[in-house]
Amino acid sequence: MAAKKKLKVFSLGGHGEVGKNMTVLEYGDDIIVLDCGVAFPQDEMLGIDLVIPDFTYLQENRAKLRGLFLTHAHEDHIGSVPYFLREVQLPLFGTKLTLGLVGNKLREHGLLNKTQMTPVVQGATVSAGCFKVEFLRVNHSIADAVAFSITTPVGVVIHTGDFKVDFTPIQGEIIDLQRLGELGRKGVKLLLCESTNVLYSGYSLSERTVGSMFRRVFEESPTQRLIVAMFSSHIDRIQQVINSAVQHRRKVLFMGRSMVNAVKTATELGYLTAPTGIIIEVSELKNYTPNQLTIITTGSQGEPMAALSRMAAGDHRQITISPSDKVIISASPIPGNEKLVSRVINDLMEQGADVIYEGLMDVHVSGHAMQEELKLIHALLKPEYFMPVHGEFRHLKHHKDLAISMGMPKENIFITDIGEVLEISTKDAKMNGTVPSGQLLVDGLGVGDVGNVVLRDRKHLSEDGLIIVAAGISMADGYCQVISGPEIISRGFVFVREADDLLAHAKTVVADALYDLEEKRTSDRQYIRNRVKDDLREYIWQSTKRNPMIFPILVEV
Amino acid sequence: MAAKKKLKVFSLGGHGEVGKNMTVLEYGDDIIVLDCGVAFPQDEMLGIDLVIPDFTYLQENRAKLRGLFLTHAHEDHIGSVPYFLREVQLPLFGTKLTLGLVGNKLREHGLLNKTQMTPVVQGATVSAGCFKVEFLRVNHSIADAVAFSITTPVGVVIHTGDFKVDFTPIQGEIIDLQRLGELGRKGVKLLLCESTNVLYSGYSLSERTVGSMFRRVFEESPTQRLIVAMFSSHIDRIQQVINSAVQHRRKVLFMGRSMVNAVKTATELGYLTAPTGIIIEVSELKNYTPNQLTIITTGSQGEPMAALSRMAAGDHRQITISPSDKVIISASPIPGNEKLVSRVINDLMEQGADVIYEGLMDVHVSGHAMQEELKLIHALLKPEYFMPVHGEFRHLKHHKDLAISMGMPKENIFITDIGEVLEISTKDAKMNGTVPSGQLLVDGLGVGDVGNVVLRDRKHLSEDGLIIVAAGISMADGYCQVISGPEIISRGFVFVREADDLLAHAKTVVADALYDLEEKRTSDRQYIRNRVKDDLREYIWQSTKRNPMIFPILVEV
Repeated sequence: MAAKKKLKVFSLGGHGEVGKNMTVLEYGDDIIVLDCGVAFPQDEMLGIDLVIPDFTYLQENRAKLRGLFLTHAHEDHIGSVPYFLREVQLPLFGTKLTLGLVGNKLREHGLLNKTQMTPVVQGATVSAGCFKVEFLRVNHSIADAVAFSITTPVGVVIHTGDFKVDFTPIQGEIIDLQRLGELGRKGVKLLLCESTNVLYSGYSLSERTVGSMFRRVFEESPTQRLIVAMFSSHIDRIQQVINSAVQHRRKVLFMGRSMVNAVKTATELGYLTAPTGIIIEVSELKNYTPNQLTIITTGSQGEPMAALSRMAAGDHRQITISPSDKVIISASPIPGNEKLVSRVINDLMEQGADVIYEGLMDVHVSGHAMQEELKLIHALLKPEYFMPVHGEFRHLKHHKDLAISMGMPKENIFITDIGEVLEISTKDAKMNGTVPSGQLLVDGLGVGDVGNVVLRDRKHLSEDGLIIVAAGISMADGYCQVISGPEIISRGFVFVREADDLLAHAKTVVADALYDLEEKRTSDRQYIRNRVKDDLREYIWQSTKRNPMIFPILVEV
Repeated sequence: MAAKKKLKVFSLGGHGEVGKNMTVLEYGDDIIVLDCGVAFPQDEMLGIDLVIPDFTYLQENRAKLRGLFLTHAHEDHIGSVPYFLREVQLPLFGTKLTLGLVGNKLREHGLLNKTQMTPVVQGATVSAGCFKVEFLRVNHSIADAVAFSITTPVGVVIHTGDFKVDFTPIQGEIIDLQRLGELGRKGVKLLLCESTNVLYSGYSLSERTVGSMFRRVFEESPTQRLIVAMFSSHIDRIQQVINSAVQHRRKVLFMGRSMVNAVKTATELGYLTAPTGIIIEVSELKNYTPNQLTIITTGSQGEPMAALSRMAAGDHRQITISPSDKVIISASPIPGNEKLVSRVINDLMEQGADVIYEGLMDVHVSGHAMQEELKLIHALLKPEYFMPVHGEFRHLKHHKDLAISMGMPKENIFITDIGEVLEISTKDAKMNGTVPSGQLLVDGLGVGDVGNVVLRDRKHLSEDGLIIVAAGISMADGYCQVISGPEIISRGFVFVREADDLLAHAKTVVADALYDLEEKRTSDRQYIRNRVKDDLREYIWQSTKRNPMIFPILVEV
């Protein structure tokens, strides 16, 4: 039974990948899961909506599941919860706001009533099998975020979740540095710490500095309508805009579905407050002059379907941008979104709006710890073992180097890939084997039914389009005789009016091939199809240097 | 003949677009063209290789063409030259290195012998019709770059091209500030000035600082193989790496086709020098230990087919990355390339290499003027009219604001869109009409034969794939009778093994539709096709929430 004496720690959500978090702790017959996030598709994942973890291991061990613990309600930490709960049942634990926002998601998936959700306050401890999970207050770019201190049979494991150190937070208190110190003093076996901002030296700025920026912009814009774009989950920042609006006697309008939903939930749960009469509906817009209005909207990442992008493109039904608008984009572009954000800025400016964005003013502060804050956590906890998490490989590597620079032996630091198991006993820790893991692509209703072959075909089609050649053939005499066609259809290949000659000639290439096959009394259907395809491909390549996907459709009658 | 008294200035290459430069000056019967660049496709231009200007106006006015003047040999200034010279003949003027690199391009297109190219030294003046074009020395991230001072019948027009102010350049001299001052003193009618770095305050750093970084890295890496990735056109920087290699008794190997070509041309023309025996071929690699080697390679933008990306992915035939490698990525990611570059960095690190890139050391300095340098040019030239060029709309807008902040009347500043004509007389300047303009998409051999419809189809195909439904029908009795099929083929839609049930059921949906049409003795072929398509689309959408492109192929026999 020696195997039972080890704690297994592994990720199912891509330790080496930004944007998807799911950590598993297993000891004997007990498993707890920390976070269950979603990733957004890479460029080459054409047509894919979401990327979720492969839950196979947890489905196979469903009897051991004691609980899913959520650090905070960002998509990369909760986005896969509905997909997970479709497959297994287990209780959910999180702070009030986290569960409120997860609840919205579960309602949409028809899972809300089937799910046991237990709100936990910061500082409290929950038992789950052999584990005791303490909820530790942290600061982050969403309210009510926590880290976990997990007492296991082999010692204490701390998972930071996402965090920063904010000495002047908007609501709630400073990250619980005292308790972290106390835990460190008593002894921490393993630290899992996020790595998002490990490349940045110094400290992150307090969220309060963004509030100062808002105050300044409101003061300097007595005549303009103000439009602020930000993440809908950034409740503290929304509160700061409301505060400035109140001070300047402006009304506040929320735009974008996720913004409206998040504000509703946060207000109901007491995380967001606004004096009566400040919040207006879109139908009331016409009652106010620009200098009486503040619009808080989604679209800070330039997402093409978000409210701000539609305003910028002149596509929004209710809001038209004009030179009386000042737009603040209160966010940094997530890597990969830079061009989308630039396009929105250019479009807004072309319509005459003033646009304030990153680089021009302090429109945003990060919610993630920078180097000095990470060092502070390492210094408070002084863990025996360390696993950097939440970052690309280069971030994990730099985080490892940071820990080494603080005196940690490098053999005690583990950079693990998804599915790789770290086994910890009371006396040692080592990598040992893997569990089934991977990523599932979500496309429409389908989960995991789009794989590499389908993506390769989509890429091929996206670059060169397709040609369909259709002919009716008869095999009545024992060999191929053409009785109708060939006809040619193309899509995504070349503009047809320009291509008349090309496609007309392509038709004769196919007709020649079929005539030749008929002459030779060919009966092998596969051979016939290949010959038509090869001849046509060769002709198209020589004429255009393009390689459309070719479908020879021979209907046999 | 009053119309003849005006100078027309307009862009055919997208003033409001980064990466494509082409400016036209027309007076009476004379036209000169400044630069002829290419743009790289936007994300939504699926399958497109290049974007070039629409030359219609110049083709229609070919008799007026007096010359194409090139500021420097970057792709966004010379990339469309071969496509332009396919359509019209006109003499080319540029400095020796510029024409050398353009010549490589023309050779590949079989145009070299047909083209009259006149090398011009910095400081010299060329007459072209009523224009006199003076070549002014500037600093930039490629050697032998110039600005143009063009004496026209209405006054002097200055086009900066791309430039920075480098007080300690690697070769050549400081940008000709004295002559700019003299020209300004005599009176400048119109300034066209680049805007790339107008968002950055302060001064750009000298290229020499990158040399210091190289020296430091060479010193700190006595045992490792050094691999430096950069743009192949950055001759001065290549020279600096060679210099450090010589000092540390390392050999230099060039990798990547464009790198090898650029080095060859620059060496032949005397812009690059290396002691005999320093440069080695790839076949000699095995003769040296890591600490005797420096590899200079393409791929600094993470381009998937470039040498560095292939090394990082373990796909390169001759070079295998190992922990004995230190890689320096000596470039900034161009907007849109951030994720590609990150991937290369992660891949290199996962193979154990040290990677030095932007943010970690001064691996790169920009070749474009920042705010204080732009102000210097405005102060030296004090033009009557100003047209900010080369940037997104937001850059042009900020450049306009910068000029206004220096006292320029805002009505004298013109932000123009592609094709919009600025007309200048001796006494005034105003926007007046447009010329035909636009962008042509290059795909394989085709220029302009891929338009919006084709791109829309490619996008549709890339997101949801396609389904082909084929059936043989007979109209012998005057209405549709199915005599074979239906058969169903899909690509890029759903992984087929998973989709057996779905596609089997889709077949019965189509069969039902055809049976119903037969019952109703339908004869309208278009109606039949639409009914099949609509029924199938509805079924697929309900089952999967996907919308593949559907092709009903009814072969009539």
